[in-house]
Amino acid sequence: MTAADLIYRNGFDATSMNDIAKAVNLTKAGLYYYTKGKDDLLYKIMTFAMDCVERDIMKPCKEIPDPEQRLRGIIRNHVNSILVSGGAITVLTEELNKLSAARKRRIIGRNRLYLDLVRDTLRELKKSGRLRDLDITIAALNLFATVLGVARWYQPKGRLSSDRVADEIARFILAGILKDE
Amino acid sequence: MTAADLIYRNGFDATSMNDIAKAVNLTKAGLYYYTKGKDDLLYKIMTFAMDCVERDIMKPCKEIPDPEQRLRGIIRNHVNSILVSGGAITVLTEELNKLSAARKRRIIGRNRLYLDLVRDTLRELKKSGRLRDLDITIAALNLFATVLGVARWYQPKGRLSSDRVADEIARFILAGILKDE
Repeated sequence: MTAADLIYRNGFDATSMNDIAKAVNLTKAGLYYYTKGKDDLLYKIMTFAMDCVERDIMKPCKEIPDPEQRLRGIIRNHVNSILVSGGAITVLTEELNKLSAARKRRIIGRNRLYLDLVRDTLRELKKSGRLRDLDITIAALNLFATVLGVARWYQPKGRLSSDRVADEIARFILAGILKDE
Repeated sequence: MTAADLIYRNGFDATSMNDIAKAVNLTKAGLYYYTKGKDDLLYKIMTFAMDCVERDIMKPCKEIPDPEQRLRGIIRNHVNSILVSGGAITVLTEELNKLSAARKRRIIGRNRLYLDLVRDTLRELKKSGRLRDLDITIAALNLFATVLGVARWYQPKGRLSSDRVADEIARFILAGILKDE
């Protein structure tokens, strides 16, 4: 079990550094070698999550010239990233209120760049007449809600492969957003 | 501010009965008149949320004979219910791990009835050829993820009316699920 899993399961405040050290097979002193404390650890988890978003989703997808293919890539890569790294990390990025103001601003700023990538892609699709008649910001938020939902309901040992799940999510969102899908 | 808002903002474990009493303008003794403690209060919030789901969504929508209209009703009523009662109550229903096993089972059981209503409606749509080629359970989970997402991103003082938001959500989901939308 990872530190993120433990914090997600028990809640941030109910989880002690002792619990975390046990879960990751470190002594408490060993754990403090890697992190300054629980707040710092939560920030590191969020930073790791945003690093994954930038490296595995934003960077490769920005290079896809066709906006429809780019949107499909964003959805599929994000779902796969959640299924690979585990839902706990994704869900914990929502615990912004536990961060100091400066750190909160930094995570929100990085999230904002991702939201902008999706909205810009939707605007491109609108220009070329491929978008349904919808509000671009709500459409982007619906996309994120659906993708992040996977982190809450997916069971690795369930009946569906991760590829199948990524495909179902992508088709649902694209049909909701694009004309003639 | 409601108790649910406070718990959602600060986290369940970081919120004391003192904080809650202050937020709802009661003495601590007054608060204990209504609830046996913090665990009991969280369970009461979840029970309240499920009561709302049954009264405002499930009961009226079960009476709609056409499955497409029923699905639209479920989505619109659920979004409106979130916008009226506030997102915090909705988000706190996910804190199942804070409950005793018996109470957890009870909330999960009630949630399950709601999931079944949506899946049965999707099956009806499939039979009459109106559903896209998709997995019914994932489609239902996508529907819930999109609707519950509203609880996280909606700002009551934002640029969009609650009716407009409910309409955008319903159109996005129905287009993702139904043929020829």
